[in-house]
Amino acid sequence: MSKSGTLVSQCEQRENARQKILEVIRATEHIARIDIAKATGVSPATVTALTSELLNAGLICEVAPQSHTEGRRGRPRVGLAIRGHAHRIAGIKVARHQISVVVTDFAGHELIHHVSPLDTGRMPGQMLAQEIQRTLEETCKRGDFSLTELSGVGLGLAGMIDAPRNFVYWSSSLEERNTHFADTVETLLQCPVFIDNDANLVAKAEHLFGAGRNCSNFIVITIEHGVGMGVVIDGQIYRGSRGCGAEFGHTKVQLEGALCQCGQRGCLEAYVGDYALLREANTSSGGERYYPTLASLFSAAQKGDAIAQSVLDRARRMFALGLANIVNIFDPGKIILAGARLSFDHLYSERVIDEMQQWVVDIGAPMPEILVHDWGDLMWAKGAAAYAIEEVSALAVKRLTWAAT
Amino acid sequence: MSKSGTLVSQCEQRENARQKILEVIRATEHIARIDIAKATGVSPATVTALTSELLNAGLICEVAPQSHTEGRRGRPRVGLAIRGHAHRIAGIKVARHQISVVVTDFAGHELIHHVSPLDTGRMPGQMLAQEIQRTLEETCKRGDFSLTELSGVGLGLAGMIDAPRNFVYWSSSLEERNTHFADTVETLLQCPVFIDNDANLVAKAEHLFGAGRNCSNFIVITIEHGVGMGVVIDGQIYRGSRGCGAEFGHTKVQLEGALCQCGQRGCLEAYVGDYALLREANTSSGGERYYPTLASLFSAAQKGDAIAQSVLDRARRMFALGLANIVNIFDPGKIILAGARLSFDHLYSERVIDEMQQWVVDIGAPMPEILVHDWGDLMWAKGAAAYAIEEVSALAVKRLTWAAT
Repeated sequence: MSKSGTLVSQCEQRENARQKILEVIRATEHIARIDIAKATGVSPATVTALTSELLNAGLICEVAPQSHTEGRRGRPRVGLAIRGHAHRIAGIKVARHQISVVVTDFAGHELIHHVSPLDTGRMPGQMLAQEIQRTLEETCKRGDFSLTELSGVGLGLAGMIDAPRNFVYWSSSLEERNTHFADTVETLLQCPVFIDNDANLVAKAEHLFGAGRNCSNFIVITIEHGVGMGVVIDGQIYRGSRGCGAEFGHTKVQLEGALCQCGQRGCLEAYVGDYALLREANTSSGGERYYPTLASLFSAAQKGDAIAQSVLDRARRMFALGLANIVNIFDPGKIILAGARLSFDHLYSERVIDEMQQWVVDIGAPMPEILVHDWGDLMWAKGAAAYAIEEVSALAVKRLTWAAT
Repeated sequence: MSKSGTLVSQCEQRENARQKILEVIRATEHIARIDIAKATGVSPATVTALTSELLNAGLICEVAPQSHTEGRRGRPRVGLAIRGHAHRIAGIKVARHQISVVVTDFAGHELIHHVSPLDTGRMPGQMLAQEIQRTLEETCKRGDFSLTELSGVGLGLAGMIDAPRNFVYWSSSLEERNTHFADTVETLLQCPVFIDNDANLVAKAEHLFGAGRNCSNFIVITIEHGVGMGVVIDGQIYRGSRGCGAEFGHTKVQLEGALCQCGQRGCLEAYVGDYALLREANTSSGGERYYPTLASLFSAAQKGDAIAQSVLDRARRMFALGLANIVNIFDPGKIILAGARLSFDHLYSERVIDEMQQWVVDIGAPMPEILVHDWGDLMWAKGAAAYAIEEVSALAVKRLTWAAT
């Protein structure tokens, strides 16, 4: 390591300290300055100076002192809290047939939500941006405020997305590949847009509000039209070096296996995705039966249809194999299976977990906990809002740094 | 997050600062106090106090001021460096047929190395501990110092190892499972022993001395008798929640595929491990030909033997598939293929990399760099020594903290 590489400028140090302080305040309901100093390792004098800047900027507010806590002497301490009114933030999740929006204040409290249908699953970026704008305008109108009052928009899409660069490699919702889709939306909305893979946003939502609270290492697997994964390591979303890590649906479970939508062979999705199951069932039935939807396939299997049972059976075993590989590779503390498809329980059953355990390398220690968390698109949108709040906070802190120099 | 959960005691803060300072000094040849303050974010006054403790404890030393650097005014600054004489540390790698040892000083400079043959690959823990003791005693004798002068021993074994707990779930070198093997060795050597998975130690060695220098996110794949993996994320070895993450050889590449040594089916090792290749080739030849070793199989393939070619061909494709999955999941900055088997290039060839690229999800961005790094067991042992140096440093810093309270 070169010496200069390790030197962090004083200016950066101050910015990092501001950021850390804001994070600590956000993580608690309210917190006294002295406790911020203890939590961050920043000196009490610097905490006083920096929180005063944050107060002046309107990002935080003072909270009236609570009555004396037992055993504590002296003056009750004034607490600091995030100032909800500081910003309005929107979180948006684009699914195949609907757009879900939630608007929160800067403290993350929901102000309003709204869901709007979407006609087609995949469309040109310009058209999707307009759909997003329309849905967001409807939401704002219902909340009795204007779109121009939003400070930031978090946006979740399925696909390969480089979040730090706000860049979409590809998404099942977009006709274009390699597109600065966030810029397209930003131009329409005239407001900063932060885009991320939807499974990453579910992982963020689980971490902040859900089954991943107080857990700094866990994995979320999402099953919708495709199979997504969000990985949290040391409390942070793991993104990989090009921003497209944590790909699960297109890991290969069979050498030169079934053809996948992505054009490659043997992907997990080509064995567990809706289209794959229907394709397999309809081909195998040789025209004698027709399975139009996953629901019809599932109901046929329950009535004893051998083809339907066999197709779902293989999907279950392939999914268990994929899960076992994830456990072998990450050894996570917890796996959360999230999605809105729990009625089709071939991928969420106890049998999946039993089979997975057979394929995890046995070390005689308990398996990671596996949770099934059924939630709708609104929670995904909440994850998108949480991501936007973080980014808006970082921008606000940067502005303070610029103002100070 | 509870408020108390975020509060780090002042004592811990001081210990962390001591640790950080020692790390920064170790990362440079020598460094002035003021530059340590800049690099760590610790105040100059605290740096002076804490480095004075480290000097008194003999862990670091002052280095004579260099002549004036151009453009710098005032007194030349006294540098601080790790004091090599502070400790002698051994690093040991146990392979199937040999034990390799390197002894370094506290600054990581090699004092002596030695390799000793091992009769059998797998043995009871007590016997392996005696072999380790014997090899280490021989090494010390050659270096003209005594085993009692060692401050710590790093030990690398193949298998599933929980390094923070110093615990072996299983190892191909040991007959016992779930054993405190480090304790067994410690009792014999009367010296602290730190055990880790050998591929993790290769990753550490690559990070400190090899192809992973200046790279904070990379993956090392090792091929010996088995297939190992070490994952470095943000400059740290990724271990997983039970200490047994980054398992690669036993990820499944085929649903109910070939039987593996581990007892499960479809593991990557069951397609690319030596035993698997020889089993497949000898079964397929129906007794007409016999392939006793990997070398004989490889030479037969080069002479046009169809069975040998087919077996190596499948191994290559399965390995490429496994690598592609690792890229899909981790999106690493770099992959280092490390091992001493480069003469058998079916797993290290350009074709492996070409095939892997077909199976990585295409995002139109450059693939991670793939490097082949041929090195012997001594470099693995150096990784083990580096691990022990870190642990001995941590113990020394803890002692300072205890002395100060």
